[in-house]
Amino acid sequence: MSLIVVGSMAFDAIETPFGKNNRTIGGAATYISWSASNFTRPIKQISVVGGDFPKEELKMLEARGVIMEGVQVKKDEKSFFWSGKYHMDMNTRDTIETQLNVLADFQPELPESYQNSEYLMLGNLLPAVQLSVIKQLRTRPKLTVLDTMNFWMESALPDLEEVLQHVDVLMVNDSEARQLSGQYSLVKAARIILKMGPKYLIIKKGEHGALLFHEEQVFVAPALPLEDVFDPTGAGDTFAGGFIGHIARTNDISFENMKSGIIVGSAMASFCVEKFGTDRLKEIGHSDIERRLQQFKELVNFDIALV
Amino acid sequence: MSLIVVGSMAFDAIETPFGKNNRTIGGAATYISWSASNFTRPIKQISVVGGDFPKEELKMLEARGVIMEGVQVKKDEKSFFWSGKYHMDMNTRDTIETQLNVLADFQPELPESYQNSEYLMLGNLLPAVQLSVIKQLRTRPKLTVLDTMNFWMESALPDLEEVLQHVDVLMVNDSEARQLSGQYSLVKAARIILKMGPKYLIIKKGEHGALLFHEEQVFVAPALPLEDVFDPTGAGDTFAGGFIGHIARTNDISFENMKSGIIVGSAMASFCVEKFGTDRLKEIGHSDIERRLQQFKELVNFDIALV
Repeated sequence: MSLIVVGSMAFDAIETPFGKNNRTIGGAATYISWSASNFTRPIKQISVVGGDFPKEELKMLEARGVIMEGVQVKKDEKSFFWSGKYHMDMNTRDTIETQLNVLADFQPELPESYQNSEYLMLGNLLPAVQLSVIKQLRTRPKLTVLDTMNFWMESALPDLEEVLQHVDVLMVNDSEARQLSGQYSLVKAARIILKMGPKYLIIKKGEHGALLFHEEQVFVAPALPLEDVFDPTGAGDTFAGGFIGHIARTNDISFENMKSGIIVGSAMASFCVEKFGTDRLKEIGHSDIERRLQQFKELVNFDIALV
Repeated sequence: MSLIVVGSMAFDAIETPFGKNNRTIGGAATYISWSASNFTRPIKQISVVGGDFPKEELKMLEARGVIMEGVQVKKDEKSFFWSGKYHMDMNTRDTIETQLNVLADFQPELPESYQNSEYLMLGNLLPAVQLSVIKQLRTRPKLTVLDTMNFWMESALPDLEEVLQHVDVLMVNDSEARQLSGQYSLVKAARIILKMGPKYLIIKKGEHGALLFHEEQVFVAPALPLEDVFDPTGAGDTFAGGFIGHIARTNDISFENMKSGIIVGSAMASFCVEKFGTDRLKEIGHSDIERRLQQFKELVNFDIALV
């Protein structure tokens, strides 16, 4: 099934308690496509980069079935740049610098060949850009998934609320779910957010796993307990890529299959954090993924004779 | 199988964002026995109370098969008293006041009828008191479980380290596991703690569930996502009671059965937090527990076709 991925492709500078990297390849759409291309191809990318973005990075993704027709290359401009520093708990980070560069006036153009795609993954990006892509599609995809963040809740809430009307699945982290709903209890937060448009809500809790809400149903997925989280950058995008990649591969949008999608996403995220940037995602293959999915099964499997 | 429970029986004053209660019945051994008595009887209690402790509270527990022969009643003294205040996240609390009272010079005396018990649950208490009970037992129980807290790591570490030599299962929360091991990563913390005596380590993470470590095995249990956590006081003790109650009922100390014990403990804790103090534990029966265990199964159950 064909999948459209929208998001940034960028440079990151990252500092963690374990090390420092001044220029690594990042961006939501980069991580999503590295992750999703393990499960489904083709992937139709929509993004924008400057003349400074390495050609070989685009080529490596093309070799994995990621189509770059919708990726604008602005030769005389610079790619989006983000730098951040993580603290010991790896769940909190400070943004040191954000240079929008090519993202500042990004007008996505949907190639004709992208029409009629079944799946749409809107990676974290300006809600106005996400909305523009939605509006350029002549037929509504079978499933639209949105990832967003607190920054847009603060700076572009009306746009974000409009995007929410058009999506099926929303992914946010726990503090963002609380911010968007104004509720501390995640169960109450989910009830409110599910009235804002999405029919499914995924709350990412980092090392504490993820929750899936739909009507009165709830699913809890664990995170793999890891010896070290080397660099959490991109873990949420990698999770999103695993989720939508699994859904597109199986072409099944039931609640039951979304549960599996969340486990696949969690497994992919557990690889991502093992090295800087996309380094680990570039190494792994199907057998690594299969082994890790098996670990997830063993991690949560229990049998209980009711009393 | 017979179970010895050691711990405080006390008065608590609790303030949460949802309400205030100036004098509720609490104490680790109180919660443990209310919880465990759903699964196993008799329970042989070891504790100390003052003349102010309500006789009817002891009688209610006796009616559930909790033997009070090892509970000292010091008529002219006051029971242990703790008051605390919870914040919005319900995972952090401030201790407002601690009055040790009868606990200050508590010398536990093990009744002869308590000898040869198969299971020993050492609730959170002075390590010296826990050690005294261990030493009074002529035969080592089939399984000894220890619950402790950061306070003893700071004030009585040598005693605590000695107790750890005699226990099979240690239960602490995530920050306590980090404090005891000096490691931030819980996987690394577990590896260190499992060299300090216990063969099994349970790390309680409140709303994020619990982890079980044993050699190279790991199990992750979810917490039930709750609409409101009304009062988290005693949730850890109630968890311990459900765990040891299940183990004693099934008389099976395998890793597989400990996984089930953790689910039972989590289910019991999810009841505890629904009302003040032990109020909710006093209401529930087997059918409530069975329904909740079923919810836990549905919460984590997933099936995945490996890619």
